[in-house]
Amino acid sequence: MSSELSYPKSKVNKVNRLADRGKYDCKTVHEILKASPVVHVSFNPGSLDDYPVILPMIGKLGSFENPSADLSEPLDLYLHGYVSSRIMNVARKAAQGEEEGTTPLKVCVCATKVDGLVLSLTPNSHSMNYRSSVIFGTVELVMDLDEKLYAMKLITDGVLPNRYDDTRVPPDSAEMQSTQILKVTIDHASAKIRTGQPGDYEKDMKRDDLREKTWTGVIPVYQAFGEPQAASYNRVKDVPDYITNYVKEHGEAEKEYALTCIDKEAAGKS
Amino acid sequence: MSSELSYPKSKVNKVNRLADRGKYDCKTVHEILKASPVVHVSFNPGSLDDYPVILPMIGKLGSFENPSADLSEPLDLYLHGYVSSRIMNVARKAAQGEEEGTTPLKVCVCATKVDGLVLSLTPNSHSMNYRSSVIFGTVELVMDLDEKLYAMKLITDGVLPNRYDDTRVPPDSAEMQSTQILKVTIDHASAKIRTGQPGDYEKDMKRDDLREKTWTGVIPVYQAFGEPQAASYNRVKDVPDYITNYVKEHGEAEKEYALTCIDKEAAGKS
Repeated sequence: MSSELSYPKSKVNKVNRLADRGKYDCKTVHEILKASPVVHVSFNPGSLDDYPVILPMIGKLGSFENPSADLSEPLDLYLHGYVSSRIMNVARKAAQGEEEGTTPLKVCVCATKVDGLVLSLTPNSHSMNYRSSVIFGTVELVMDLDEKLYAMKLITDGVLPNRYDDTRVPPDSAEMQSTQILKVTIDHASAKIRTGQPGDYEKDMKRDDLREKTWTGVIPVYQAFGEPQAASYNRVKDVPDYITNYVKEHGEAEKEYALTCIDKEAAGKS
Repeated sequence: MSSELSYPKSKVNKVNRLADRGKYDCKTVHEILKASPVVHVSFNPGSLDDYPVILPMIGKLGSFENPSADLSEPLDLYLHGYVSSRIMNVARKAAQGEEEGTTPLKVCVCATKVDGLVLSLTPNSHSMNYRSSVIFGTVELVMDLDEKLYAMKLITDGVLPNRYDDTRVPPDSAEMQSTQILKVTIDHASAKIRTGQPGDYEKDMKRDDLREKTWTGVIPVYQAFGEPQAASYNRVKDVPDYITNYVKEHGEAEKEYALTCIDKEAAGKS
């Protein structure tokens, strides 16, 4: 639809290699982030020679100003962590320095799902079915208490829907102080998706000996859930419905995607 | 064992937050990288304002000088990509510039496996069982043809053991030219692992009302394989044994890890 909201293409987010796999609409970019239990966050700590740093973190999308916004609308990414961890210290220092003319912390966040191993006739045309989203954003410390509580619920329910209200909430003041929430404003974003069957070079497709020797196809790969295992100190007899339903439905959806994406036309040759 | 090879702790790789989850021995760091179908590679392209860039890539460990080295020994990480992709252009420019006094490209590579959702009595003590490895390394372009072929086989078989020799090999000259292999020398590395049951605060454990209301435990999460799906142009009737065996054994091992790690003592409280 032409009415879909999209991230504008720029030198930062443009997919150059196999450009037909690139997607820029909010819904696609956001869906992949949502489907990933962890995201990888990269930043420059400014003190480790020339290395950037990557941290695996839990990151969830939402809009504090427009809480009913869905995945096709503009959203921010909330990350949480311990108040004195390195990324928090770096973000705080950058924020404090702003008054002195330094810029806030910039990050790149990537979420990737592997959906299948794509096996063709020759190594160079092997591939994976996958979905990845990359966002480039600017970090802000969340200091407003209401927004912080909003983000804590968003993050908890983003990992397991309906969990927050089933636990001891709200966090007490010690917990509020030991947890730092970062808000990433998305400046640029794009997604890259590969679906479909293997693709092979004409030169290999012509070779009957090779075609009759080498099996070609896709091994579906997906994230699965096992049976929930009660803690040794758990006192609730039955696993609640919101957990069993999520495990069942989400598990089936992941498996279904890995299978059905094989029949979608591949974006890109290999 | 005191004879285990480890990466030295430094300001770059030291795990500060929940330090008892940190691991530095080669075997642990390398095993997590090996178990990850994709790794996340971060670098500074030097042209995108202050953003670092993350790319999901296939990365496999090996030693061209000592090909029989196992995971407990020093290894390099090989990455492959299209010759004109951004990371390759940046790596090439950095390598060429070395003569003019610039430094080679530095990267951070992270591999993360989520093994379980850890559900406790209050949101702040929720966690995940996970394994992550982070390496900081220096990038070199592989120009030697023998090393390039070594890396291509390493990468293909790293995704699916025994695949390389079952396909049309070696790559022809066009394929050799269009593929660039990067070798990452590991300068610093560490792993971080969380296993075990949930952990709760004393203040919540004392509350009978809460204990009787909120289910606590772990939802195992693991990477699963589906039934291999033949390509429309496949002519080999049966899926070869090396594929069915790998899918079966690797799939079972992943599931087994997610379950058994719950009974290992948690490193860290939450």
